[in-house]
Amino acid sequence: MINFFFQPASIAIFGASTNPNKSGYKLVQNILDHNYSGSIFPINPKGGEILGKKIYKNLSEISEEVELAIIFVPNSKVISILKECIVKGIKGAIIESAGFGEVPEGLKLVDEIKVITENFTKIRVFGPNCTGLTFIQKDGEGFFASFVPMPKIKTGSIAIISQSGFINGGYFLNITSRHPNLGFRYVCAIGNKMDLNENDLLEYIMQDPEIGVICIYVESFFDVRKFIRLCNLAKNEYNKKIILLRSGLSKLGSQATASHTGALARERTELIKAVIKQCHCIEAEDFKNLFQIAYALDFTKNSDIHQVDNPGVSIITISGGAGAVMADLCDKFNVKIPLLSKNSFDELSLIYPKWMPPQKYSLLDIWPAVENAAGDYQKVMLKSLEIVLSDPNIHAVFLTAFYSRTSWKMNWYLVEELIKEHRKPVYVWLFGEYSDVLEAEKIFQELKIPVFYSEKEMISTFSKTISQ
Amino acid sequence: MINFFFQPASIAIFGASTNPNKSGYKLVQNILDHNYSGSIFPINPKGGEILGKKIYKNLSEISEEVELAIIFVPNSKVISILKECIVKGIKGAIIESAGFGEVPEGLKLVDEIKVITENFTKIRVFGPNCTGLTFIQKDGEGFFASFVPMPKIKTGSIAIISQSGFINGGYFLNITSRHPNLGFRYVCAIGNKMDLNENDLLEYIMQDPEIGVICIYVESFFDVRKFIRLCNLAKNEYNKKIILLRSGLSKLGSQATASHTGALARERTELIKAVIKQCHCIEAEDFKNLFQIAYALDFTKNSDIHQVDNPGVSIITISGGAGAVMADLCDKFNVKIPLLSKNSFDELSLIYPKWMPPQKYSLLDIWPAVENAAGDYQKVMLKSLEIVLSDPNIHAVFLTAFYSRTSWKMNWYLVEELIKEHRKPVYVWLFGEYSDVLEAEKIFQELKIPVFYSEKEMISTFSKTISQ
Repeated sequence: MINFFFQPASIAIFGASTNPNKSGYKLVQNILDHNYSGSIFPINPKGGEILGKKIYKNLSEISEEVELAIIFVPNSKVISILKECIVKGIKGAIIESAGFGEVPEGLKLVDEIKVITENFTKIRVFGPNCTGLTFIQKDGEGFFASFVPMPKIKTGSIAIISQSGFINGGYFLNITSRHPNLGFRYVCAIGNKMDLNENDLLEYIMQDPEIGVICIYVESFFDVRKFIRLCNLAKNEYNKKIILLRSGLSKLGSQATASHTGALARERTELIKAVIKQCHCIEAEDFKNLFQIAYALDFTKNSDIHQVDNPGVSIITISGGAGAVMADLCDKFNVKIPLLSKNSFDELSLIYPKWMPPQKYSLLDIWPAVENAAGDYQKVMLKSLEIVLSDPNIHAVFLTAFYSRTSWKMNWYLVEELIKEHRKPVYVWLFGEYSDVLEAEKIFQELKIPVFYSEKEMISTFSKTISQ
Repeated sequence: MINFFFQPASIAIFGASTNPNKSGYKLVQNILDHNYSGSIFPINPKGGEILGKKIYKNLSEISEEVELAIIFVPNSKVISILKECIVKGIKGAIIESAGFGEVPEGLKLVDEIKVITENFTKIRVFGPNCTGLTFIQKDGEGFFASFVPMPKIKTGSIAIISQSGFINGGYFLNITSRHPNLGFRYVCAIGNKMDLNENDLLEYIMQDPEIGVICIYVESFFDVRKFIRLCNLAKNEYNKKIILLRSGLSKLGSQATASHTGALARERTELIKAVIKQCHCIEAEDFKNLFQIAYALDFTKNSDIHQVDNPGVSIITISGGAGAVMADLCDKFNVKIPLLSKNSFDELSLIYPKWMPPQKYSLLDIWPAVENAAGDYQKVMLKSLEIVLSDPNIHAVFLTAFYSRTSWKMNWYLVEELIKEHRKPVYVWLFGEYSDVLEAEKIFQELKIPVFYSEKEMISTFSKTISQ
């Protein structure tokens, strides 16, 4: 078990710095800021004090037991520190320093580490060349081992395993500040994965009942067969959704990853694609897409939304043109727009004008009905939504939402009530005056309703959530 | 010539209303709000006054000449009004009312209109079932004939021809408020195109030397051969960029457009695709994409940026993982990442640490150089940008920008200076703490630097600007 990496009883931090501009300072600060509950031992040969904590000059000064080490010192010093850690009986080390597999000189260091750790049997290693890991136990609390300072983040059912450090750094900051209501539990930036790799973490995390969605970004597969087996196990036995972004598929992409984390481009593109297919994961197209899918899946899970196989979707729009473009996109992404049930059609007919009845298909341009209701947009939108959500042929809704604080008001909490009542996913494509849109966006984030600014993104994301 | 539709000397507005909640009021308000310079004659059988203007009971009350009519009355009343307009010698009518080609009863009306207008030789018709047109002559001024109130919009080199009304309504509001620095000249919502169609407008607009980019959204082609000819003429003779979004390609999409604007789905999907190919337009994937491409092209044109055929692009990133994903996407979208020139490599080597030299390819992960410069992100980013912009092998740059007001400051005006000096396009993928990102976004909008929140969107949009 590798539990001590996420909930260590005590940690030694090699490379702790008293200079607030240095990452060795921010690392300690990040841990203290999030109420880490165990003992902390900052270490630096210079000694001193950091944020009220004594800095030890070396490990032998510490009489207490230490469970985990975080190492953030130049690569040349890592070997001797690891030796000390082994002597001390430390179980694991997160090496955030760079300069190992990704540079020629570092390869020798890797070999040496393998020898002294007896192939990582004496001590387990996380990294190197990484931003460490974040374990969010309670809202805003847990073990935050990245040298990139993190704000308070909600705990939740999403886990991330990433070979790229910026997923436990700047980009994670972007995602969590954009979606403040989205909860994460594990963020693992595995770096060069000298010892612990995506398979170890996937195997560990998939057994956590708190986890619903696992996002994986890798630049190489450590053990392809095991990865395929674990993905299918996670999906079928543990009921997890896995979203995968794999880079290095192109010639240049694989060259880039080789220089970055030392991943070797042994596999050919076609082979990688075949592997991905066998994993039965949801495949993300870029980092934004990875988190959009996670966001949509998380919303579905946490709001106890029903998702059915081969769902029928209704489009509610106030623009026929937008409806036509969306219908084409549904066709492209294999999303089915069924016929309305007779009951729905009859009910809709009551709110549409006689000269412009609703369509037979569940593609609803509600504009004529809004005109018919003397412009009462909200009334017509809510009534239409209620009708299609009650329709047994319809399992999800794409809502085209023009929002304006002044002329096109809409109480989104009433939309949420309908979603909760019918437990079918509703995705929103939002547009309008930009400051109004940003206002509405906050409400959608609060309600955890998936919101998009592009019709293609909305439909493509939905199609991915049903494709696994 | 159809100049009187855009710059009419005088207009009669049928269906003007004294009720501020009605579209017949907003229509007049919209015209007055934007300093329309001609004479305005609101008309309603009830009479009264609107916004300080007398409402005439009918056209015969007006002794002055009237050049253009805007008709916003129930469909049944349109025929008699058109007859009056012909008698009065009015040159054109914008019919914004619905209930013509898109409903069975309306087809009879269409036939009757053709008879009384003698196939539109007695009066030209724009619409019906549309939000009219907007002609922006000066910043915030011109002829704003939509019943959807518009804010002040900048004039510029973009024209829009759209079969969907929401492009001269809610969605246009979204685009212009999001990109306040983006300038438009024509926005034509052609609706059912009973008389004037996309070909007439394209032919007229392409001759306007102020125009650089023409965005077209259509649900059907009126005359396919002419459209192909005009697109190629606009491109080759008049040096315009045309971006095309065509809906109704799927079965459901064509059904949707049929009920919406009465467009008949005569053409088969494959045929439509073949037509689009022959137009040599840039094809947009959805409405967001349409305007993203327009935004990028407009920036290139107005900032006097050089665009070359088959450009080499450099990626500057602070994340190796992001770089790897972007390299894969460049491969997917046929964007070339060339080798650095020897000079660039040598110059970059000076700022990279010895243990981690730059790559040979123009894919720059500047993180090691930032560490080497004791974290001076801005210095390294600007220096790297300067080096690649000076490289003769490189014609454009994708900049991965992590921005933070507190810890990762960046003076984007210095980036703009480099762009102006080297006249090569720089696209930005922006991320960071969300409120910081929104702050930076404003600066990018001011500088008109294309900014994206998805690496795929950035690369795909760039690839479209070079594909025509």
